[in-house]
Amino acid sequence: MELNARAWLVLAFAHVRVPELQQLLAQFGGIDEIVSQQPSSLKAAGLADEKCMSIVSPDEQRIEAAIAWLADESHHIVPYGESDYPDLLAQIPGPPLLLYINGNPDVLHLPSLAIIGSRNPTQGGVRNATDFSRHLARCGFAIVSGLAQGIDAAEHRGALDVDGRTVALLGHGVDRVYPAANRDLAHAIATNGALVSEYPLGARPERWHFPERNRLISGCSLGTLVIEAARRSGSLITARLAADQGREVFALPGSIHNPLARGCHALIRQGAKLAETADDIITELAPLTGHLLQSTTDSASENGPSPALDDDYVDLLRFLSHDPVTIDELAAQSSLTIEQLSSMLLILELHGEVESLSGGRYALTG
Amino acid sequence: MELNARAWLVLAFAHVRVPELQQLLAQFGGIDEIVSQQPSSLKAAGLADEKCMSIVSPDEQRIEAAIAWLADESHHIVPYGESDYPDLLAQIPGPPLLLYINGNPDVLHLPSLAIIGSRNPTQGGVRNATDFSRHLARCGFAIVSGLAQGIDAAEHRGALDVDGRTVALLGHGVDRVYPAANRDLAHAIATNGALVSEYPLGARPERWHFPERNRLISGCSLGTLVIEAARRSGSLITARLAADQGREVFALPGSIHNPLARGCHALIRQGAKLAETADDIITELAPLTGHLLQSTTDSASENGPSPALDDDYVDLLRFLSHDPVTIDELAAQSSLTIEQLSSMLLILELHGEVESLSGGRYALTG
Repeated sequence: MELNARAWLVLAFAHVRVPELQQLLAQFGGIDEIVSQQPSSLKAAGLADEKCMSIVSPDEQRIEAAIAWLADESHHIVPYGESDYPDLLAQIPGPPLLLYINGNPDVLHLPSLAIIGSRNPTQGGVRNATDFSRHLARCGFAIVSGLAQGIDAAEHRGALDVDGRTVALLGHGVDRVYPAANRDLAHAIATNGALVSEYPLGARPERWHFPERNRLISGCSLGTLVIEAARRSGSLITARLAADQGREVFALPGSIHNPLARGCHALIRQGAKLAETADDIITELAPLTGHLLQSTTDSASENGPSPALDDDYVDLLRFLSHDPVTIDELAAQSSLTIEQLSSMLLILELHGEVESLSGGRYALTG
Repeated sequence: MELNARAWLVLAFAHVRVPELQQLLAQFGGIDEIVSQQPSSLKAAGLADEKCMSIVSPDEQRIEAAIAWLADESHHIVPYGESDYPDLLAQIPGPPLLLYINGNPDVLHLPSLAIIGSRNPTQGGVRNATDFSRHLARCGFAIVSGLAQGIDAAEHRGALDVDGRTVALLGHGVDRVYPAANRDLAHAIATNGALVSEYPLGARPERWHFPERNRLISGCSLGTLVIEAARRSGSLITARLAADQGREVFALPGSIHNPLARGCHALIRQGAKLAETADDIITELAPLTGHLLQSTTDSASENGPSPALDDDYVDLLRFLSHDPVTIDELAAQSSLTIEQLSSMLLILELHGEVESLSGGRYALTG
């Protein structure tokens, strides 16, 4: 993969966008072919001079540094169009050409919910973020956010509290931590989920990165839940992006005397779903979750044996009984990974076939 | 009017419904003619035997008692189809044949808002009911409710606090007070607004009266605001009646941890307008208010000189300047009553022509 990584890094450093990539692929056939073209050919394919020159004369030192970074087993790049690239993210306008990931890229294929909100929430807001995150992470959702102070930090921690999966989309290189207060949290997320960025290694947390980054928070999630937000706030922009991307938007109502409920109320007036409990969210996302998993399984199946989706679930049900088993035991018995099991058990639970019990154990219902 | 009152009481005691009344009027021409018919004629007009007999042989003692009650200048009966009968109430399915009123019947022609909610609200709910009621009563709205404990009592008191108008629709005779704890409040409402019932004098607060009564709370109001309500509660039934009657429904959101916010959230999900401030309500009702007042003025004008609506407002503006005046001073200068002035000033305020100042004073804006 190293040579291929080099080619993707060359294109990423040249700021090639996905539509340009598609044009170049149509013309030249493959990534390796693109990066070995003459400037004139690239230009003839519609690429701007600057990008042509950057492809032909890449910053080798920077590429070497990135490839060295990739030597760590938790460091990954995931290019657009590859099977590791999240389906949901591929569907948004302006998808990133390349994702830099520190952690486990598989978590980006779990059913996912973005939880967003104020950097200066009330204590009640922090408690709600933690509670919703714990509950939904326990149900198998990956909890997605931006590693900011306040609501973001509370929900990342909530998911980690229950051994759940959580994803942080960053407005800077994944090799940096910002804000510094979240250093330990970032480390825990990399270990139990993923730190993800479209910005190159070393990129600073520039102010203009964050609105751009917000489209990825909503974009890699089935839905976005706003916990507490002021009337004019980044959270409301992210929620609007989610709606524009055709994703579900949920908002928690609150006291009319809480200024941070105003943003949520504004969203509800604009059509966001009013959420009182985690079940309100699960009910809405369950059908979408099934769909996502199906398409994920389909694309994954290109690289291996491809049993029909239904058979997968029937097989899994055979390993389950009314005696609770842990997900680790299921992984040992079946040919499925923890991540696959986690998604599939959620679906079965949503369909009432399986119930999740304390201690991460599962059993047939009834 | 006494003879006419007798005839209306005869029909009311016979439980004649409005569609039956209309049929009888079409056949016999007038109320006095109806009550002097033979039973066979009434039966031929489609009335049930029992109702025919009750009209022909009324309970004279009960009628005498009601007529004696009417001798008090604050006691009134307002029959369907008369100009005193509230326009909004005439529009609902199943309007009452007769209203018994203790207080001022004119307040039923003010722009009106029902405020409803739990009999066991939180302290926050009581505070919100009081605040919204005070603000909206100060703006000229009559505040309508059911004289129950809790939210009802708080908002009736809120309106009275600011010398506003408030209307209590009762599930028993207007000559009774229920619950007993609200005796002083009922007295104050009769003095500064109106106690209203469709049930005859002496009628007890039967359990089945209250759902019936609820249709009148929403029915005589432009909109209904729900402050705090449980998921299954009378308030939600009233709110549904309001929606069925084509009236605006507003609900206050609250903490997801407050069980009495659940009913409000359910309403918001079903399409009720989320209200954070009194202005949210005024903005929605302002256009309807204009319409109501116009139609009220039109029907009132049948009994007197009928200047065009616009001229009325132009005349009133002549009495106003940038020096604040009280509504009493305006009443002394103009030929308008306090009630008329109160409605018209609200309209002018909503149109930005007039501003209301402390101490119930008004001045031209700007």
